Amino acid sequence: MGRVTARRRATHLSSTQITQRPETLAVEEPLEIRLNGTPLTVTMRTPGSDVELAQGFLLTEGIIAARAEVSNVRYCRGATEDGANTYNVLDVTLAPGVPLPDVDLRRNFYTTSSCGICGKASLDAVAAVSRHAPGDDPTVVSAATLVELPAKLRAAQKVFASTGGLHGAALFTPDGELLVTREDIGRHNAVDKVIGWALEDNRIPLTGTVLLVSGRASFELTQKAVMAGIPIMAAVSAPSSLAVDLASQSGLTLVAFLRGESMNIYSRPDRIKHD
Amino acid sequence: MGRVTARRRATHLSSTQITQRPETLAVEEPLEIRLNGTPLTVTMRTPGSDVELAQGFLLTEGIIAARAEVSNVRYCRGATEDGANTYNVLDVTLAPGVPLPDVDLRRNFYTTSSCGICGKASLDAVAAVSRHAPGDDPTVVSAATLVELPAKLRAAQKVFASTGGLHGAALFTPDGELLVTREDIGRHNAVDKVIGWALEDNRIPLTGTVLLVSGRASFELTQKAVMAGIPIMAAVSAPSSLAVDLASQSGLTLVAFLRGESMNIYSRPDRIKHD
Repeated sequence: MGRVTARRRATHLSSTQITQRPETLAVEEPLEIRLNGTPLTVTMRTPGSDVELAQGFLLTEGIIAARAEVSNVRYCRGATEDGANTYNVLDVTLAPGVPLPDVDLRRNFYTTSSCGICGKASLDAVAAVSRHAPGDDPTVVSAATLVELPAKLRAAQKVFASTGGLHGAALFTPDGELLVTREDIGRHNAVDKVIGWALEDNRIPLTGTVLLVSGRASFELTQKAVMAGIPIMAAVSAPSSLAVDLASQSGLTLVAFLRGESMNIYSRPDRIKHD
Repeated sequence: MGRVTARRRATHLSSTQITQRPETLAVEEPLEIRLNGTPLTVTMRTPGSDVELAQGFLLTEGIIAARAEVSNVRYCRGATEDGANTYNVLDVTLAPGVPLPDVDLRRNFYTTSSCGICGKASLDAVAAVSRHAPGDDPTVVSAATLVELPAKLRAAQKVFASTGGLHGAALFTPDGELLVTREDIGRHNAVDKVIGWALEDNRIPLTGTVLLVSGRASFELTQKAVMAGIPIMAAVSAPSSLAVDLASQSGLTLVAFLRGESMNIYSRPDRIKHD
């Protein structure tokens, strides 16, 4: 679509010179996701893989659990002043019989109407809606394989290399074979696109896979891994307290600070083999 | 409150050894913001400066424009099963006469009901609601002062140093004096806390200041700077296309890739003085 990067002029200042030059930037545009015609959410994303993004989002929010629960996804068109399609509104039609979510899903699915919202409530909410929790997944990966994954993700991140502006997410087999990689200005979107790809490819639940993210491990990203049935998630940077708690409770192996030859394993270390 | 960091046991693996050790992590907990008793949004944040966060959020979403438009902020208590206060729900009462936002604010304020959602619509929405756009601000800062700011932010980021898990935001004077710094697991929250601090201190609009963020410059962060009337925003990492477009349209000076002795200036370079 030619909309992944854009050029803008900038003034480059260094200690020795001033130059005017065009810079290549990551494109950021809003995507509105509609469900059976009703607006559900807006996310700021990098265009591309939008159908994967929408379906991955619906899966990780617990609205659908399989490809068959979606009957149709199409760009909504024709309503702008000049009749043009912005390719920024996707309407997802659920299959007959799939229930529409409560309106509170518009905010966050772990929102509670009680006054006691807390991390514990968030963990319980994920546990309640996840149909694919990875607790029993017997997958094992070697530490030697894991430490090579960040370089593989970087090599595959083409747009990041040109803009420095995109987060990356990738799925690997336990042998370190790259299955898919996606980039986005939003790290949650990069993960949703990867999971949406898997949904399209009938690979849900994602048993026997490793999810790698280029940044930190937040609650939100960990939740997405759990919702998709991924047994091992690795992050290049730090995890949050709630990400570790969710991983522990869900039986997800959470690896973070995966850098050089070292890593920290915060939960289910039995899935990481080392000599 | 002792809730900014937490300890969790981890298995540390390096090429030479395996050790079990406690790790210090950034705490992540949900915060529900209510407006006159009605839930408005939930954000995953690092506890601390919650009142600043809530008020900064309301300002940057265009719901309030000054401290006087809030009559009261308090933690909602007593509704959990055991009667405990989780300190994760804040109820903001607006001053008499301040209008409540439309319910669609629950999603994103630039959401449109038309089919033509696009970056242009987002820019126009910010322009429509901003009461403090920085276009006329005559502030000038020297490049020599700017290049020293990232080190000052890092020095002030105490929790990041111990966890590696927090984004930072800081306000400076044009002479490089640090006014305030805040950290959070969410970069938008760090900026909202900084702006909420300024609101509490009656400094809105933030004319004559420089906002520095530790990561990238997204549309969302740029929007927050514009809504608060900040004339100069600098980011350590890359900007997005829409961030540059919003800065250009709003008269905000946007600096990114501020590293070492160099930087890129994407809009209003007249505010950056160099020899």
